[in-house]
Amino acid sequence: MMTKTVAELLSQEVTLQDVTVKGWVRTFRANRFIALNDGSTLNNIQCVVDFENFDEATLKRVTTGAAIHISGDLVESQGKGQKVEIQVKKLEILGDSDPETYPIQPKKHSFEFLRENAHLRTRTSTFSAIMRVKSSLSFAVHKYFTENGFYNMHTPMITASDAEGAGEMFRVTTLDAKNPPLNKNGEVDFSQDFFGKEANLTVSGQLEAETYAMSLGKVYTFGPTFRAENSNTSRHLAEFWMIEPEVAFMDLAGNMDLAEDFVKSVINYILEHNQEDLDFLDNRLFNEEKTKPQAERSPMRLIEKLKFVTDNNFKRVSYTEAIDILRQSKPNKKKKFKYLIEEWGADLQSEHERFLVEKHFKCPVILFDYPANIKAFYMRLNDDGKTVRAMDVLFPGIGEIIGGSQREERLDVLKEKMKALDIPEEELWWYLDLRKYGTAVHSGFGLGFERLVMFATGMGNIRDVIPYPRTPQNAEF
Amino acid sequence: MMTKTVAELLSQEVTLQDVTVKGWVRTFRANRFIALNDGSTLNNIQCVVDFENFDEATLKRVTTGAAIHISGDLVESQGKGQKVEIQVKKLEILGDSDPETYPIQPKKHSFEFLRENAHLRTRTSTFSAIMRVKSSLSFAVHKYFTENGFYNMHTPMITASDAEGAGEMFRVTTLDAKNPPLNKNGEVDFSQDFFGKEANLTVSGQLEAETYAMSLGKVYTFGPTFRAENSNTSRHLAEFWMIEPEVAFMDLAGNMDLAEDFVKSVINYILEHNQEDLDFLDNRLFNEEKTKPQAERSPMRLIEKLKFVTDNNFKRVSYTEAIDILRQSKPNKKKKFKYLIEEWGADLQSEHERFLVEKHFKCPVILFDYPANIKAFYMRLNDDGKTVRAMDVLFPGIGEIIGGSQREERLDVLKEKMKALDIPEEELWWYLDLRKYGTAVHSGFGLGFERLVMFATGMGNIRDVIPYPRTPQNAEF
Repeated sequence: MMTKTVAELLSQEVTLQDVTVKGWVRTFRANRFIALNDGSTLNNIQCVVDFENFDEATLKRVTTGAAIHISGDLVESQGKGQKVEIQVKKLEILGDSDPETYPIQPKKHSFEFLRENAHLRTRTSTFSAIMRVKSSLSFAVHKYFTENGFYNMHTPMITASDAEGAGEMFRVTTLDAKNPPLNKNGEVDFSQDFFGKEANLTVSGQLEAETYAMSLGKVYTFGPTFRAENSNTSRHLAEFWMIEPEVAFMDLAGNMDLAEDFVKSVINYILEHNQEDLDFLDNRLFNEEKTKPQAERSPMRLIEKLKFVTDNNFKRVSYTEAIDILRQSKPNKKKKFKYLIEEWGADLQSEHERFLVEKHFKCPVILFDYPANIKAFYMRLNDDGKTVRAMDVLFPGIGEIIGGSQREERLDVLKEKMKALDIPEEELWWYLDLRKYGTAVHSGFGLGFERLVMFATGMGNIRDVIPYPRTPQNAEF
Repeated sequence: MMTKTVAELLSQEVTLQDVTVKGWVRTFRANRFIALNDGSTLNNIQCVVDFENFDEATLKRVTTGAAIHISGDLVESQGKGQKVEIQVKKLEILGDSDPETYPIQPKKHSFEFLRENAHLRTRTSTFSAIMRVKSSLSFAVHKYFTENGFYNMHTPMITASDAEGAGEMFRVTTLDAKNPPLNKNGEVDFSQDFFGKEANLTVSGQLEAETYAMSLGKVYTFGPTFRAENSNTSRHLAEFWMIEPEVAFMDLAGNMDLAEDFVKSVINYILEHNQEDLDFLDNRLFNEEKTKPQAERSPMRLIEKLKFVTDNNFKRVSYTEAIDILRQSKPNKKKKFKYLIEEWGADLQSEHERFLVEKHFKCPVILFDYPANIKAFYMRLNDDGKTVRAMDVLFPGIGEIIGGSQREERLDVLKEKMKALDIPEEELWWYLDLRKYGTAVHSGFGLGFERLVMFATGMGNIRDVIPYPRTPQNAEF
């Protein structure tokens, strides 16, 4: 007896006697054909039972969602749709699934319903495909960086500095919620809290990653980050994973090269390793879009969009040039943009980014040299005194997917910038030390992993690409 | 001009004209020999300057910690200790490092001092070696699971259920710290908190991982977990990373096979990929231990200990048998154990675990079938009604490194256990659903990643194997 996964069985070129497989029933047709899935692949294996040879009571328990143990011979399939199937010799029910109450029926469920049953939704083809693709992408990230001489680094989740100001933060505390200790000024006495001061959940590992880049050369983080923003949109999560590489001696041009090479590499990885899942998701999206008005449909199918990224050179355009293009563009002149572009300094919205990618350049775009006042304090000031060496990578369908910059490596300039923004030097003494001792040009970027998974799977709601989404008013499971 | 890393240069078999390299000065000897490091390897490259050809002011700035840019020819080294060196033709100072104030001098610093300068400590050989080994281990984890058909899964950091009870938790909140809103009973009104109820940082992703195992088959998590315990020891962190595989249709024997194969595989990976770093750390530990009294020294050197794990079969012993052995052991009879083993049911301490591994069996040990009342509620009850299908993997030097179990898959038994422990069913309705719909035998384990890194690097304090440790009263950087 060989216990095999469904994936192993389906990839067999030869027939096999006496195989055994365990999985969950997807459907049981005509009291004869069991479609069995064990998560190892999108596809089910067909298990054929001669109902005359099996006890009726047992067959009645072969219901959608039941866990069963099958033994039999792997033979060439007589039917269409599969090369091989199992001629069942033994069938054991491991765990029943009451068809009256089991939520995941063999029919189309709404994504809303499946979110409420997130603990069971990977028992559907769509969500199992998403999570297999996501897992592949995750491995591709580690593989890419490892093969390119980067070290993985674990930056802290809990931080006592809120200097980056990338967003609202969650407080982490063990103080009594109702009656916190107060100090003599009548304020909460955080010196009695677990960490001896007020502590929050991190919004980014970048500043800490810079410390390691300035010693180990090339590093990356890949871990959770948090935003306590009350944004109930299809693109925001309170808890999400970020990828943040940081490289010493690399300037903005090198950063663009890295971002382009990296993102192409990980997308190529899933195109190679997840073909069945991507084909399925491609079809799913195509069918979903059919139900939408023409204007809302995506001009490209899913796999087409992935190849649009891997097969095109990313066009590099300065912010200033982009503003000119946008100002002169038809949708701007005809007031079709929700936010009209009037002057240099405007913050670009997703509609503008998508116009540049999808209509104007027809390839992924990297915008660079943004106005200093719409970007973070640590970005390197250009000689013009008004732009910084920032970059955003723009993708079709979503706009910005990667944001990065060359970091300000000059102590005096950085201090001035912090002063202007009221960031106390004492809070970031260690960050300033990097500019005091052996400073050098360095750069990095951040990529929200779930946004990449949305792009790669064609899913429209970020809650559907993370097992248990955390959003305002929701921390279920 | 070819810009190369130090690792690339040192691995050259041929000499090269016109190479360029950037890095940080480790030492500058006799106004002639610069030892340059860029983090790509433990080793420095020797850069030889003819001081007659360089401006004195520039050479004065070649101080420990300075970032410099070197161009020259890679030639066979005349000196001992290296095959190649750079004959410097051009030298540019990128970032100075004031020798009067730079904390990391070319001398031995205490680990305590380096913890206070954790942002600079990877500029030492010891900490750069640790972090390279750690990064390799991390990749080995992803590689092992990917190659063995597991899917990576991101379980949530923020959780509204504290059912597992694996330890004290941190509260995550956006409520006003001083004046939280109160409900009509005068209690804090968590319905007004960000998630609409009280939320905490997770202590484990296991329960959520089980939901994915029961659909995708084989999954693993690798992410941060948290304990708000006031443990200021060399083995505890408030924030650390855990690896948690979970596999459907796998029993405890399979779980033991997986744990043994996994841990051998990742240790073999670093033995293959991090030889220089491990040799360095092996010597470091050996020299450190020379300063200790004989009794406190480790009986094995570092690499010996790693091979003790990879080259031995893990001995599988029931808890009951282990208790008998310990009760009869010399240190128990002679009252050398701090905690004497008197009867069945005792919780084992590190001293007992180490005795079994180092003295009695002389190989890694897996204990299994522990008393139910010293283990968690979700572990599968044996037919004896008093033991559960739990296992702990024990290593030399540290004792328990992995803890796991077969999970209770029977709805009625699980409900009874939860009732006895006052765990409300409503909190874990989704966990119970797994036992209602297609339940099956399944198992998994947890491995504290930093404990593994301590074992692999020979470091004695867990604060030294994570970039920025979070411990009571400390969240610096």
